[in-house]
Amino acid sequence: MKKIAILNGPNLDRLGKREPEIYGRTTLADLERDLRAAFAGRDVELEFFQSNHEGELIDRIASLADRKFDGLAINPGGLTHTSVALRDALAGAHVPAVEVHISNVHAREEFRHKSLTAGACVGVIAGLGLYGYRAAIEFLLTRG
Amino acid sequence: MKKIAILNGPNLDRLGKREPEIYGRTTLADLERDLRAAFAGRDVELEFFQSNHEGELIDRIASLADRKFDGLAINPGGLTHTSVALRDALAGAHVPAVEVHISNVHAREEFRHKSLTAGACVGVIAGLGLYGYRAAIEFLLTRG
Amino acid sequence: MKKIAILNGPNLDRLGKREPEIYGRTTLADLERDLRAAFAGRDVELEFFQSNHEGELIDRIASLADRKFDGLAINPGGLTHTSVALRDALAGAHVPAVEVHISNVHAREEFRHKSLTAGACVGVIAGLGLYGYRAAIEFLLTRG
Amino acid sequence: MKKIAILNGPNLDRLGKREPEIYGRTTLADLERDLRAAFAGRDVELEFFQSNHEGELIDRIASLADRKFDGLAINPGGLTHTSVALRDALAGAHVPAVEVHISNVHAREEFRHKSLTAGACVGVIAGLGLYGYRAAIEFLLTRG
Amino acid sequence: MKKIAILNGPNLDRLGKREPEIYGRTTLADLERDLRAAFAGRDVELEFFQSNHEGELIDRIASLADRKFDGLAINPGGLTHTSVALRDALAGAHVPAVEVHISNVHAREEFRHKSLTAGACVGVIAGLGLYGYRAAIEFLLTRG
Amino acid sequence: MKKIAILNGPNLDRLGKREPEIYGRTTLADLERDLRAAFAGRDVELEFFQSNHEGELIDRIASLADRKFDGLAINPGGLTHTSVALRDALAGAHVPAVEVHISNVHAREEFRHKSLTAGACVGVIAGLGLYGYRAAIEFLLTRG
Amino acid sequence: MKKIAILNGPNLDRLGKREPEIYGRTTLADLERDLRAAFAGRDVELEFFQSNHEGELIDRIASLADRKFDGLAINPGGLTHTSVALRDALAGAHVPAVEVHISNVHAREEFRHKSLTAGACVGVIAGLGLYGYRAAIEFLLTRG
Amino acid sequence: MKKIAILNGPNLDRLGKREPEIYGRTTLADLERDLRAAFAGRDVELEFFQSNHEGELIDRIASLADRKFDGLAINPGGLTHTSVALRDALAGAHVPAVEVHISNVHAREEFRHKSLTAGACVGVIAGLGLYGYRAAIEFLLTRG
Amino acid sequence: MKKIAILNGPNLDRLGKREPEIYGRTTLADLERDLRAAFAGRDVELEFFQSNHEGELIDRIASLADRKFDGLAINPGGLTHTSVALRDALAGAHVPAVEVHISNVHAREEFRHKSLTAGACVGVIAGLGLYGYRAAIEFLLTRG
Amino acid sequence: MKKIAILNGPNLDRLGKREPEIYGRTTLADLERDLRAAFAGRDVELEFFQSNHEGELIDRIASLADRKFDGLAINPGGLTHTSVALRDALAGAHVPAVEVHISNVHAREEFRHKSLTAGACVGVIAGLGLYGYRAAIEFLLTRG
Amino acid sequence: MKKIAILNGPNLDRLGKREPEIYGRTTLADLERDLRAAFAGRDVELEFFQSNHEGELIDRIASLADRKFDGLAINPGGLTHTSVALRDALAGAHVPAVEVHISNVHAREEFRHKSLTAGACVGVIAGLGLYGYRAAIEFLLTRG
Amino acid sequence: MKKIAILNGPNLDRLGKREPEIYGRTTLADLERDLRAAFAGRDVELEFFQSNHEGELIDRIASLADRKFDGLAINPGGLTHTSVALRDALAGAHVPAVEVHISNVHAREEFRHKSLTAGACVGVIAGLGLYGYRAAIEFLLTRG
Repeated sequence: MKKIAILNGPNLDRLGKREPEIYGRTTLADLERDLRAAFAGRDVELEFFQSNHEGELIDRIASLADRKFDGLAINPGGLTHTSVALRDALAGAHVPAVEVHISNVHAREEFRHKSLTAGACVGVIAGLGLYGYRAAIEFLLTRG
Repeated sequence: MKKIAILNGPNLDRLGKREPEIYGRTTLADLERDLRAAFAGRDVELEFFQSNHEGELIDRIASLADRKFDGLAINPGGLTHTSVALRDALAGAHVPAVEVHISNVHAREEFRHKSLTAGACVGVIAGLGLYGYRAAIEFLLTRG
Repeated sequence: MKKIAILNGPNLDRLGKREPEIYGRTTLADLERDLRAAFAGRDVELEFFQSNHEGELIDRIASLADRKFDGLAINPGGLTHTSVALRDALAGAHVPAVEVHISNVHAREEFRHKSLTAGACVGVIAGLGLYGYRAAIEFLLTRG
Repeated sequence: MKKIAILNGPNLDRLGKREPEIYGRTTLADLERDLRAAFAGRDVELEFFQSNHEGELIDRIASLADRKFDGLAINPGGLTHTSVALRDALAGAHVPAVEVHISNVHAREEFRHKSLTAGACVGVIAGLGLYGYRAAIEFLLTRG
Repeated sequence: MKKIAILNGPNLDRLGKREPEIYGRTTLADLERDLRAAFAGRDVELEFFQSNHEGELIDRIASLADRKFDGLAINPGGLTHTSVALRDALAGAHVPAVEVHISNVHAREEFRHKSLTAGACVGVIAGLGLYGYRAAIEFLLTRG
Repeated sequence: MKKIAILNGPNLDRLGKREPEIYGRTTLADLERDLRAAFAGRDVELEFFQSNHEGELIDRIASLADRKFDGLAINPGGLTHTSVALRDALAGAHVPAVEVHISNVHAREEFRHKSLTAGACVGVIAGLGLYGYRAAIEFLLTRG
Repeated sequence: MKKIAILNGPNLDRLGKREPEIYGRTTLADLERDLRAAFAGRDVELEFFQSNHEGELIDRIASLADRKFDGLAINPGGLTHTSVALRDALAGAHVPAVEVHISNVHAREEFRHKSLTAGACVGVIAGLGLYGYRAAIEFLLTRG
Repeated sequence: MKKIAILNGPNLDRLGKREPEIYGRTTLADLERDLRAAFAGRDVELEFFQSNHEGELIDRIASLADRKFDGLAINPGGLTHTSVALRDALAGAHVPAVEVHISNVHAREEFRHKSLTAGACVGVIAGLGLYGYRAAIEFLLTRG
Repeated sequence: MKKIAILNGPNLDRLGKREPEIYGRTTLADLERDLRAAFAGRDVELEFFQSNHEGELIDRIASLADRKFDGLAINPGGLTHTSVALRDALAGAHVPAVEVHISNVHAREEFRHKSLTAGACVGVIAGLGLYGYRAAIEFLLTRG
Repeated sequence: MKKIAILNGPNLDRLGKREPEIYGRTTLADLERDLRAAFAGRDVELEFFQSNHEGELIDRIASLADRKFDGLAINPGGLTHTSVALRDALAGAHVPAVEVHISNVHAREEFRHKSLTAGACVGVIAGLGLYGYRAAIEFLLTRG
Repeated sequence: MKKIAILNGPNLDRLGKREPEIYGRTTLADLERDLRAAFAGRDVELEFFQSNHEGELIDRIASLADRKFDGLAINPGGLTHTSVALRDALAGAHVPAVEVHISNVHAREEFRHKSLTAGACVGVIAGLGLYGYRAAIEFLLTRG
Repeated sequence: MKKIAILNGPNLDRLGKREPEIYGRTTLADLERDLRAAFAGRDVELEFFQSNHEGELIDRIASLADRKFDGLAINPGGLTHTSVALRDALAGAHVPAVEVHISNVHAREEFRHKSLTAGACVGVIAGLGLYGYRAAIEFLLTRG
């Protein structure tokens, strides 16, 4: 059985509460339930984690590495554009990661066009809403 | 029945021939066949088009708009980073588009980190290999 | 009798179809008819050409040079900001050119504020809608 | 009857005196006389103003707004590239303005390629010599 | 009764201890006491919070949003210039915020001239010392 | 009795006339009257001055220095971002100055994010509307 | 027998017609004849191709790769500075390429100082006039 | 007899009053008296002018051109770094000008290292205190 | 007896586990033991601390300042390049600090070439492996 | 008889010793011998000079100018990217120069993509190995 | 008696030989003779030195410092824009220096607009031809 | 017995003479004596070299390579920030080098924050005063 983690960074605990006209009304709990349902019959164990703390995300990535996870879907929120420490954590973990953004960062402010963390990931999905998490997991499962 | 187009830009006709250690051995013809197979039972019509000519891609996008396509997965290749004309074509077509890159452009040369066309798309998928096309189509179908 | 060409670049074939709230409902065919009418009694022959292909625009500019045209009104569309090749074609043709933009590019995205082609033209008209083409022709006729 | 103002900024009082090989021998007085002649039979009142003072230009733009002018052709001279205050005056006046440059600023020094004021205008005409003023007025009259 | 929070970010717990020649000898406890005294007879409840942790600040902002606070005076310290996550928290909270800096950041190092968080605030006060907090609260109370 | 000046730069004479949806309907005369009322019983003399001319603002700052004013609240308008001369005037006057902006400049165009004049002021208040002037005066009075 | 291609990009069909004072009076046909003569007795087959279309150049490079050419001398004209797609074509072809410029691009406008395509070539020759093509072929022959 | 003008821009009326530790205690009146004394027996007429208004400096430069002055020593103060209009005035006047700065601008803030006006002058003297004016006049006299 | 702290930032808890080919197989525990052994007979007390949390590092630096430590060797990991808050903590602590990097950051990615924190330290050691910590402590001991 | 000099700058004395996998095993002495052999029967005198000293290279260029050399092939090594003094020497010598680089500088570090000296040369050859010197001499001989 | 040195950097030995249309026909020897004549009756000893070697200029500046020179006029030629080492030599020598440029560097290429060495000098004279050296010496003598 | 060289670049011969308040009163001769003393009983031969000439430093590095030195401590002074040639010498020598700076370059002018030479070294020590040389040698000895 494969182990895949879904990590969400700063402010994603506000999903469904914050700016629903942009992000929709689905909460993080809804997302977890939907993803568990979607991969119910599959040979995979999903672990969910959200934190507004860069340090806790780094701690958790280290823990995933130690527990030999097979993959990681991460939405680093605002840390995407500013955190070298998170990039280093991803680069050092040797767990294949897919960066997920709910909105299309390329159509927003200039400072969101550049990702520091993406260079340490296998790939990036942006703008596909919550479907992005699902595609990331699917990719990580089919990848080998 | 929905209509989805898959557009590939410059050099993607070389898929499977060019640098197989990076891009794998699947050709564009293989990709077409695989995608047709994957969406066989679904209520969707797939149209494939590849060109090394910016102008032909723009012509085709206009044609998709006229024919009221429901969605568009586009890998603009090197034009991603240089073509305002292609961006304008996508912006003017009012056909929801997902930009697809086979490799993780964020882990390559600096000049590939910025996309001119992504701002006119709904979202972007990069680094997920050929699976990216599939996820793009899936998203376009589930989207509405 | 003077010979003046009106060249339109990528996506201008979509005029009147694309974003009418910005560009109005006049099509390129309407524009041609209106301009022919406006200069009907004048000692001038007008030639119209549109292409989404950079190469075809360059080919045509070379042809205008060979046929000793007296002037050229060109709307290079998105190529304005990216094409050194088009700039070189204009610079080498020795046919006085006026760059025309329907919308005011200076009030749009940052990357539209700079024109690569304008440096090889006699002048630029932006934001005056379709009237810009007319003023360009008028200028080219009165110029000498 | 429509009211259109023609504003000229720093150094344009030197027209016809300064560098005639570039700007020709027509003076600002000649320009005024020519434009009055050209629009003689038209339902329009023209007001001319020149100043080397940024503040006086701003004062005058405010006055035009108060007197409900229908349009404004402005050549801000060197202020084009440096004056946020003039831009703000234009933006706040709600009088449609056309920015006019006698020479093609895009073919001159790098610092002339960018206009701060153009973003607050309806459009820009550059490089068409004194004809640019005429086209600007014509556009403002035909515009509605 | 209105509810206003005063948030202080990294290193502001050192107020009155760190570089007193720049920041004075007033401690954060003194500030709290002074502000409570100043707004004693007013219809307002003040909540104070300081943390050196970006994540705790984001957590608190979310909490303020949930508890429907009427306003927020925030001194993000060094995070001002580096934290997109904090900006996102402020933008998503829909609690009007005033950014406060004790010193005049514009007269210090270049990297302090730009604020990432200010764009998600109603306004900014810098260089007015501890009075800045007081003015921010006053503004938030009088604002509506 | 202390002497405090309130200086307003280019376009602020249009307050209440220009874009009321942004700046409100209060005019500069209203502002003067309100501030005089607010500080009526206080030991302070207020002097008001507005000009669209950079030179007149500099002249006035020199005059305030000669007349030994105790403080200065200045809204330099568009000159904020472009005038080294105004900065030099403020730096040379040795009258403590607070820069005031009615709107939050950090949430507007990129070129408004940087202030040349702020480095020569004691502090900056932005986005607090007309209340900003009041807080500036209050600060200047309480400061020493 | 070795196979070497000589590719010329946009506007090089105008050689000898365009700005003879810079580029001389030799036409592309002359160049072809001269090069054929120069390498007449050598064990090499020369193929010539010119196009103003980026797409046709990319198509041709792919064709050269398929036909196992031993080398390629390419003058990409204005595409040198703007085309990632052409760079990708060269990088993917595995045919050793030498970039040739007739004039010394380093002594011309700033935007010509940087080459996007050169990074995918073996080397670059600039400013040696038509001799540059000859040296490129000679190098490709002697190289192995 | 030659005619040389000495122009001083914004804030130079404060000379000897403003920051004497930097600029010394000599006033502008002292400077005029000293320079008149120094060139007393020489075949030259000196004209002095100071203004805090960019527009008045431009007006005066035009006047000097009309009155066929032989030279011009100008200290544009803060306008040095920001005024294209002043540069244009100097370029159009055809009166040889020497730019003078009392302090060494290259050893001050970054934004003072670049001069917009110097490119339209014959030369620049910076950091030599009031002696710089004298050397400028001497140079203009010996020059032709 | 002197008190020296050794602080390690994000991801340094992974030392010896993460990329051993780059960082070697020594763990943080090994480092602590080796340093304690190396300074065993010396008049110094060593305190070790590691955290992936910026806030905890700032908290600890404040604590070191309160406890009057004599020196501080800090490896801020990825925070080196992004944290103004950590820089402020170091600047405000008045404990002399040496920044240590195990690898040579100048030979890695561009974004690692610049250190925000180094400006608040006494010095920097990079690329000397774990020996860097030892040299830092030696320096701090010999320094005063 | 024509006189051509071959100048080599810093570190080229290490040719064949330094990184043979990149630069091959041919030494500078070999190069001299090969070039003398290649041009043995030709009407040309070759002069070789290598120095690690910028000043000696400038001295030598001046000497070549005095001795009326007909051409100059120069590989400035690392000075290519940093020496304005060498550029000035080349520009002032009026001896036509060809800049030669053994490796393709455009495919190496970013700071090697720009040449300060090339703007003062007739042309540039890069990446053709030692053959580049030969082609440079050939060009200088055939040039007239 | 005061001691003043006149240092000339790279390529200034070519004065009068190199580009006489720009620099005139006066040689460095002429300059020395003229300056000795001009200051003949004055209480000053002049020492002249020219070198194309950065190192020799630095050696000489150190020697001037040891011999307690009273001033230094230096034309660093191309090193002006590139040599931090020369700047450091000037900064460390504590001999007041005036930087002299014969031509107006501000009216030449962009890379000549910025001086690295000027920040370590008392002042700069540019564009006044050989008179600049004379004014520099005069200033250094009158200065104290 | 190991061989380690200590190289000092421009202006370091002035150590102890230049700005003693920054660099202290120890001369280069003192440094040599101290280092020889410190490593007296160790199995190492130290070679000292200082030059203000970039070329001599490059010559010496080549000589060290030929004589198979085991390590190199180099303080390139101002060349650190400007010399690609020195970087190339270090990269080509295959002698492990440690870059040493006496002062903390990161706390000085912006242009000293970036090192061109560090990328070709094993590591960097800055700000540790003369102790930095000692630590560099110690590291080079213990390294293998």
